[in-house]
Amino acid sequence: MIGIFDSGVGGMTVARAVEEVLPERSIIYFGDVARTPYGSKSPSTISQYARQNCDFLLAKGAKLIIVACNTAASVAGHLLQQEYDVPIMEVISPAVAQAVKSSVSGRIGVIGTRATISSNIYEQEICTLNPSARVFSQSCPLLVPLVEEGWLAKRETKMILRRYLHPLRSHGVDTLVLGCTHYPLLSHMIKPRMGRRVKVIDSSLAVAHALKKFLTDNPSFAEGLALGGERHYYVSDITEAAQSTASRVFGREMNLELVRIDT
Amino acid sequence: MIGIFDSGVGGMTVARAVEEVLPERSIIYFGDVARTPYGSKSPSTISQYARQNCDFLLAKGAKLIIVACNTAASVAGHLLQQEYDVPIMEVISPAVAQAVKSSVSGRIGVIGTRATISSNIYEQEICTLNPSARVFSQSCPLLVPLVEEGWLAKRETKMILRRYLHPLRSHGVDTLVLGCTHYPLLSHMIKPRMGRRVKVIDSSLAVAHALKKFLTDNPSFAEGLALGGERHYYVSDITEAAQSTASRVFGREMNLELVRIDT
Repeated sequence: MIGIFDSGVGGMTVARAVEEVLPERSIIYFGDVARTPYGSKSPSTISQYARQNCDFLLAKGAKLIIVACNTAASVAGHLLQQEYDVPIMEVISPAVAQAVKSSVSGRIGVIGTRATISSNIYEQEICTLNPSARVFSQSCPLLVPLVEEGWLAKRETKMILRRYLHPLRSHGVDTLVLGCTHYPLLSHMIKPRMGRRVKVIDSSLAVAHALKKFLTDNPSFAEGLALGGERHYYVSDITEAAQSTASRVFGREMNLELVRIDT
Repeated sequence: MIGIFDSGVGGMTVARAVEEVLPERSIIYFGDVARTPYGSKSPSTISQYARQNCDFLLAKGAKLIIVACNTAASVAGHLLQQEYDVPIMEVISPAVAQAVKSSVSGRIGVIGTRATISSNIYEQEICTLNPSARVFSQSCPLLVPLVEEGWLAKRETKMILRRYLHPLRSHGVDTLVLGCTHYPLLSHMIKPRMGRRVKVIDSSLAVAHALKKFLTDNPSFAEGLALGGERHYYVSDITEAAQSTASRVFGREMNLELVRIDT
């Protein structure tokens, strides 16, 4: 089983990408809808929640965990890698590697929640791979609520995107990292606002491809993973917005299973 | 001690109103910032959190509790009143009473989070007091994030407000209830969009006045309440956004005290 967790249903863009790239693998997803969003919480709270989520996935048979939440990955990714024995992947490093590879000018933009951006993790990781890179970051706290409201083509969403993206355009970035798993649902609006010369990196797809490479490079580990395309989508709360966002992500009706992990 | 709880810092508009109306009373506030927002959670999760919040306030010496969160009040208000021995007030009934008194045409608008609006509680309570009233409700899920982003005078906020309020204007309401404690921070933008003939009811002020009346009507209970204007503002998480929203509400620097209640 490949375990994937997110603060809510946004990380389902990662699960969808894994389904696409590795259709035969079994997936167990946990979305912490009851405590979403993580982006506005403090590091210690986020770390505590991330541990509970990992414990739940491991108890359900996960052999590898993808932290499909940029906020949790930025705040607690290294900590989880130290504390757990199974491989812990996350959505940041693969996107960073792809961005550094893609950028010609070394001017790279990053958008994310307030917690992700203030953690500075994208900037640090990008500069580790390319010390001469210049990173321009912008926190976009309204984008997750807009996606969850389903306002994917509204004029207000376009205006808010323009306000958020304008500084990055002015800085002349040639690559933009979507540093939040909700944002791929807005990429059809983000791309035209950045211009066709700017390469937009989807962190959900990037981690799915990194997972595929990891399994190819570690065949004995890959053999120990269940095949059969089994899928479970657990959430800590079932709400109308979670249901509709999940269905929007997968383009099909989703059967979410309710589970309490904090009591 | 007067105990007040909210899903976050929005309920501080209630605490501020109580400070104004009853400056000599001691207040203990709990804002569940770690688990905010409640508006997108399911009824059972909201009820569980509301109980934990009450237990915390009672353990700290509260003799009366105000549920300063419309979502929690709409979903769990009656339940708390049944389960606890202390008086439980909430932000809905006083605003409803004021709205019914204020409305001449009986056409009343209500705005709130998705959970508050789908609970239908405002409509039910208004129609109990005035069976011939017509209630027009609108959920406004983006307003809380906009307030917490501090976009209190931005063009996008105006446009979003116009989109939310337009149907209520079309229905010709003469009274509008702000059914979320964050919304008083936007009333300077809401009032002009509704027009000067529409009376806007601030549920935070309404409950503070109802509390004053309750204490006047119950002098022996009021005597048992500590005086001295002591104030404690507890939160389950301290974030930059919570800090700045709190300071915005009170117009002064706020000293928030961190407390964990879910572990």
